[in-house]
Amino acid sequence: MSFSFTPEFEALLEQVREKMESVVYPLEDAARRNFEEALPELMKARDALRAEGFTAPHMPKEIGGMGLSFLEHARMSEILGRSPIGHFLFNCPAPDAGNMELLHQFGTEEQKKRFLEPLVRGEIRSCFSMTEPERAGSNPVHMDTVAVREGDEYVITGRKWFTTAGHLADFAIVMAVTDPEAPPHRRASQIIVPADAPGFKHIRRIPIMGDEGYGWSSHSEIEYDHVRVPVTNRIGEEGEGFKLAQERLGPGRIHHCMRWLGICERSLDLLCKRAVSREVGDGQTLADQQVIRHYIAESRAEIDAARLYVYSTADKIDKQGAYAARVEISSIKFFVAGVLERVVDRAIQVHGALGITEDTPLSWFYRHERGARIYDGPDEVHKNTVARHVLKPYLASKG
Amino acid sequence: MSFSFTPEFEALLEQVREKMESVVYPLEDAARRNFEEALPELMKARDALRAEGFTAPHMPKEIGGMGLSFLEHARMSEILGRSPIGHFLFNCPAPDAGNMELLHQFGTEEQKKRFLEPLVRGEIRSCFSMTEPERAGSNPVHMDTVAVREGDEYVITGRKWFTTAGHLADFAIVMAVTDPEAPPHRRASQIIVPADAPGFKHIRRIPIMGDEGYGWSSHSEIEYDHVRVPVTNRIGEEGEGFKLAQERLGPGRIHHCMRWLGICERSLDLLCKRAVSREVGDGQTLADQQVIRHYIAESRAEIDAARLYVYSTADKIDKQGAYAARVEISSIKFFVAGVLERVVDRAIQVHGALGITEDTPLSWFYRHERGARIYDGPDEVHKNTVARHVLKPYLASKG
Amino acid sequence: MSFSFTPEFEALLEQVREKMESVVYPLEDAARRNFEEALPELMKARDALRAEGFTAPHMPKEIGGMGLSFLEHARMSEILGRSPIGHFLFNCPAPDAGNMELLHQFGTEEQKKRFLEPLVRGEIRSCFSMTEPERAGSNPVHMDTVAVREGDEYVITGRKWFTTAGHLADFAIVMAVTDPEAPPHRRASQIIVPADAPGFKHIRRIPIMGDEGYGWSSHSEIEYDHVRVPVTNRIGEEGEGFKLAQERLGPGRIHHCMRWLGICERSLDLLCKRAVSREVGDGQTLADQQVIRHYIAESRAEIDAARLYVYSTADKIDKQGAYAARVEISSIKFFVAGVLERVVDRAIQVHGALGITEDTPLSWFYRHERGARIYDGPDEVHKNTVARHVLKPYLASKG
Amino acid sequence: MSFSFTPEFEALLEQVREKMESVVYPLEDAARRNFEEALPELMKARDALRAEGFTAPHMPKEIGGMGLSFLEHARMSEILGRSPIGHFLFNCPAPDAGNMELLHQFGTEEQKKRFLEPLVRGEIRSCFSMTEPERAGSNPVHMDTVAVREGDEYVITGRKWFTTAGHLADFAIVMAVTDPEAPPHRRASQIIVPADAPGFKHIRRIPIMGDEGYGWSSHSEIEYDHVRVPVTNRIGEEGEGFKLAQERLGPGRIHHCMRWLGICERSLDLLCKRAVSREVGDGQTLADQQVIRHYIAESRAEIDAARLYVYSTADKIDKQGAYAARVEISSIKFFVAGVLERVVDRAIQVHGALGITEDTPLSWFYRHERGARIYDGPDEVHKNTVARHVLKPYLASKG
Repeated sequence: MSFSFTPEFEALLEQVREKMESVVYPLEDAARRNFEEALPELMKARDALRAEGFTAPHMPKEIGGMGLSFLEHARMSEILGRSPIGHFLFNCPAPDAGNMELLHQFGTEEQKKRFLEPLVRGEIRSCFSMTEPERAGSNPVHMDTVAVREGDEYVITGRKWFTTAGHLADFAIVMAVTDPEAPPHRRASQIIVPADAPGFKHIRRIPIMGDEGYGWSSHSEIEYDHVRVPVTNRIGEEGEGFKLAQERLGPGRIHHCMRWLGICERSLDLLCKRAVSREVGDGQTLADQQVIRHYIAESRAEIDAARLYVYSTADKIDKQGAYAARVEISSIKFFVAGVLERVVDRAIQVHGALGITEDTPLSWFYRHERGARIYDGPDEVHKNTVARHVLKPYLASKG
Repeated sequence: MSFSFTPEFEALLEQVREKMESVVYPLEDAARRNFEEALPELMKARDALRAEGFTAPHMPKEIGGMGLSFLEHARMSEILGRSPIGHFLFNCPAPDAGNMELLHQFGTEEQKKRFLEPLVRGEIRSCFSMTEPERAGSNPVHMDTVAVREGDEYVITGRKWFTTAGHLADFAIVMAVTDPEAPPHRRASQIIVPADAPGFKHIRRIPIMGDEGYGWSSHSEIEYDHVRVPVTNRIGEEGEGFKLAQERLGPGRIHHCMRWLGICERSLDLLCKRAVSREVGDGQTLADQQVIRHYIAESRAEIDAARLYVYSTADKIDKQGAYAARVEISSIKFFVAGVLERVVDRAIQVHGALGITEDTPLSWFYRHERGARIYDGPDEVHKNTVARHVLKPYLASKG
Repeated sequence: MSFSFTPEFEALLEQVREKMESVVYPLEDAARRNFEEALPELMKARDALRAEGFTAPHMPKEIGGMGLSFLEHARMSEILGRSPIGHFLFNCPAPDAGNMELLHQFGTEEQKKRFLEPLVRGEIRSCFSMTEPERAGSNPVHMDTVAVREGDEYVITGRKWFTTAGHLADFAIVMAVTDPEAPPHRRASQIIVPADAPGFKHIRRIPIMGDEGYGWSSHSEIEYDHVRVPVTNRIGEEGEGFKLAQERLGPGRIHHCMRWLGICERSLDLLCKRAVSREVGDGQTLADQQVIRHYIAESRAEIDAARLYVYSTADKIDKQGAYAARVEISSIKFFVAGVLERVVDRAIQVHGALGITEDTPLSWFYRHERGARIYDGPDEVHKNTVARHVLKPYLASKG
Repeated sequence: MSFSFTPEFEALLEQVREKMESVVYPLEDAARRNFEEALPELMKARDALRAEGFTAPHMPKEIGGMGLSFLEHARMSEILGRSPIGHFLFNCPAPDAGNMELLHQFGTEEQKKRFLEPLVRGEIRSCFSMTEPERAGSNPVHMDTVAVREGDEYVITGRKWFTTAGHLADFAIVMAVTDPEAPPHRRASQIIVPADAPGFKHIRRIPIMGDEGYGWSSHSEIEYDHVRVPVTNRIGEEGEGFKLAQERLGPGRIHHCMRWLGICERSLDLLCKRAVSREVGDGQTLADQQVIRHYIAESRAEIDAARLYVYSTADKIDKQGAYAARVEISSIKFFVAGVLERVVDRAIQVHGALGITEDTPLSWFYRHERGARIYDGPDEVHKNTVARHVLKPYLASKG
């Protein structure tokens, strides 16, 4: 296992940190308060960052990205994650980032030209439609949405929710059952659906923790009402939907974890700033209180251990692929989500009343990341996965 | 210690539970989504409840209340607390409830006639202005707002925040320093300030966890800019502000605790409903999963232990007064807030993605009650209080 | 619910507290270090206490006990529990205490004369043989030990372990299957077996946490090898073994809980004494450290809430019987065991290296009470019980 | 950061694992039950292992060790730690291991010849005398033991406790004040004291968690009563005692952490074996219970994250020295001790009654490692250290 990075990459990270300070943080408050209003300003900043080469870090340079390796992108992701708008401004927010990876790895030339390249250039937006209201999101094997083949077309019918960024997307990648008779993991396919296709109905932005969001920061319910798309819009082979989802979700979880660590670092930073500045009488500040100090120490240790755990998993993905690392991916998913919860909670607590206002990003983190222990599989499901794997040799030796 | 209740009171509670089902819960969703829009409907329901005698439970019957004892009110509070609008509809939300108690116990006849009685009748609204932006809210001894006496008037100057319901209040009870030279606990007084007095400036509703609220559900920042009120607006003697605050806050914390237990019961109820209805395959539901069952058992035990702890503290207040029970009040404050946090969290987790939407009241509880471990003194401060008390005899015997 | 106690009882408790200081604590160290060596001294103290009327608190005065009600005994149990030898010196240790209750409630006149009365007088010792090595102790329905009726005798065959105090017992109450064909809860009976009956084989004192104990503080493995006893040694009707076990275990768990609270109080007391005396430099002691203070506050709150929870359950047993309170009994069992674990752990931590030596009783508590979360049903089983009960109406309404 | 190991080292580890199975585990039970009785057998096994080259892994091959790097030794340490006697049989138990390192790095040629080499060859035993009964062990700056220089000799007077393995040691390395007037960190020196020197008085083996141990597994109280040793017995320069202690303790903590991870792995292994074998009815085992599975998953994740955290710290020590890594060392000390506590606790819980007997090594781990959160600095002290470091730049920028 080796987590070393080149000096060039370290220098690049330094530039990214500088951009966070000079470009991202100053726009953050406005975006948190009203993303819709802030959007023009944000787009301008995003264009400027792209002009300087800071965009789509995980895509090859040839098509406009920064050409980072998986582990490098993971590491940069932590820095971007320090702000709710970091990934957006660097054009690698969920679900665009995952969609780019998918199209890059598995798209046809035509698909790349039409959907991937403008996405990398920031000209269009995308979403990913998998979870269904009546089906446990953690189990992509069960779904009601179907894509019935008629000639050279699929006719897609079904209802999806928690389609992140579905609100302003130009196209969706939709997971739909193409062969209900196949073995469970071979039933579904992933199909590109332009948002202007007849039958693509945006129902609502689902209010999440009191906030229905806007554009990228929203999660939509979408009805696919007999939407017709050409068969050539399918990504990969028919029946490969689940396999592609695994390829997508595994690394996606790494990026969530790294983003969460960015949130942790930002929260700990805010905690420390608050602690040294808040006076509590007798010339003392919160930073003089031992309990606050222990919050800091526990946070520091938990974050650092978690980061190494994520790196080591990313390293395994790099070397052996997402499938080989699937158990570790489940482990870090619940482990880091737990760290996230505790660190953000401590930071809020140290801020007192200020911590529950909108005057810091902590409220955003608290509200928007309660989902961290739920989305992409709740803790309980990932723990089941890990335990099954750990127990396997014991059960086997039992005969 | 005796926590028994009369059969009459038990019958009354049954009626209250029925009103929750028939009146309160049906209005809850609309109120959670847009309190402003829902207000006319809510006011109508509140009037109807009052017409049937369900209003101001802790006020004497003579002035229109229900005449409950402290422990009875505490117990009813838990039932009302099951809905975010329960206390409001029964005309005993914070801070009106505390203001009524204060005026009832310490107000002059004139103050009662002018402020208390219309408040009990639901004709006017009130707020309580104590916390200041630059001062730790847990320490009401330190404050910058002053009330300078000029003839028969006080001239009040200062800035307050987290003035709950300050937004539509008809009057505020303001804590202000009347004698900066007095010993710390004798410096401040509590003074009634009509909201239409010149200089009463409503600055903003502070967004709390993404929600700036409206009316009763909002928390305001208010500037008192040379506001003049007659000296007869002072409650109690000059310098008694801190003492009255203690009289007010101690019992107030009981009511918070009971309200939180109501939230816990509601959350556990939602958790169980979800558990038995959410299918996870093979004809099983979440309720068949042992981990979910343990969430339920742990919640049940924590809630029941916490309730007894609060009752026992309320009983002590009843018999020996708030001052004698101040250490227990600190204990239950942090103990119950911890139970609240865990139970709501488990309920959300069991709801999965649904739990972070607005389709259940859990999101409201999660966001609005993160403050429970902060307001009226953060956990850390209450723990200090309890420890100081426990250690006292040991330090004394050490000499 | 009413937890008030008479002034007479309060006065009695004061006397008991005084006996703890003057008689019990001074003998404790010797007993902890070598119970065998200390036994003569302990027996002398026990006789002296009995001579003054301090013995068998839960037995009627007519047969030599103190005649306390269930709730009173529970309360006294906490005080006795502050020392590892408190219950022993007051002649109400497990399993003698439970055996006395059983014989008192369900024994024949002959059984009472021969077994109960000398037990109350402290002349003989007893044990209770239920758990079997190959069977989950939490499920007394499954057992391999059988009592085959031959004429007027039972022939008992089987192996039991964790038979507390089996080592020096004069008789055992044995749970054995008398009718393997009966419905599960009607299969077993409880039968008195004198230790000098042929076939009663004491195999070993099982070392528990490094300590095999002696006499009362030991837990034995016992083989019953075709032991013959008269049918008149059966307690209650044939097939009532499980029912009697329930009658015995429910209240027994209350006593464990109260004893654990005694351990908690003692541990917190030791914690505080250590905190105020241990200097950490600059004229400060551990008691000046905020983290230590929070340990104290959290312990205080947890203990007090737990005690009320146990009282309330004892009150329900008193009024409605053990069966009606069985869910609460499961709740307090795991709730209080958790408090016990945390409080003892904090006390050890505050003692530093001293806390892991034998120079305080904390090591004893830590080692001997790790079992608290296991014996009489592990936490996991009790949580299952509580959850099943909470879910019942939800599952029912689902149809 | 790079944690890769050579194929040769991996092969060696495989051999070590094999030796654990074939040599170490079979002797473990006897050693746990009565180390004294088992000693001859253990010495024979240790000699046999040395004959095959498995001894003193961290010492150079030239003097009989295995020549491992620091990180390699750390990694092997985890494997040895799986058994209470692993380090002993490989001749690298505390405190011998640390003493060897100290003498190897800082000893004179004469000291090496006389003390180090026979220690590596397993011919003699050693101990390390630092902690004093009346002084917080976490602060080696304060101590009462003095070494007064008289001519070419030091006269050492003082009392030490928790001198691990002091019982049968051939020499002690004693920390004593050589210059009480010097700045705190320059007051003490480390001096070698042969156990047969007049005035070296072994007072007692301190019973730890009910067990006074024997030889290597004991912790002694020792009086140094005017013990005279030549000045040439001093290690390093006068006044360097504290500095050397730091050099010794930092890496020593790494070894504790790795040993703890070995205990965790062993405990998790026992947990899994128990889970798959313990039947709970209906053909199910504990391994079918979700709560048990979650114990497994949480343990797996915590152990793996902790290990990476320790490796990364060991890597920093290797590259930048123990001083540079001192904050990380404090972090892993409390972080891994917490993991250890939880994993051992879960394993015991899954074993039920069996888990508190001596029939598995879990009781040993539980009792002997409660000290993990205390020795070499309690959690609270290490958290203070980490927080001070994290806060430093914030306090500095505040000016």
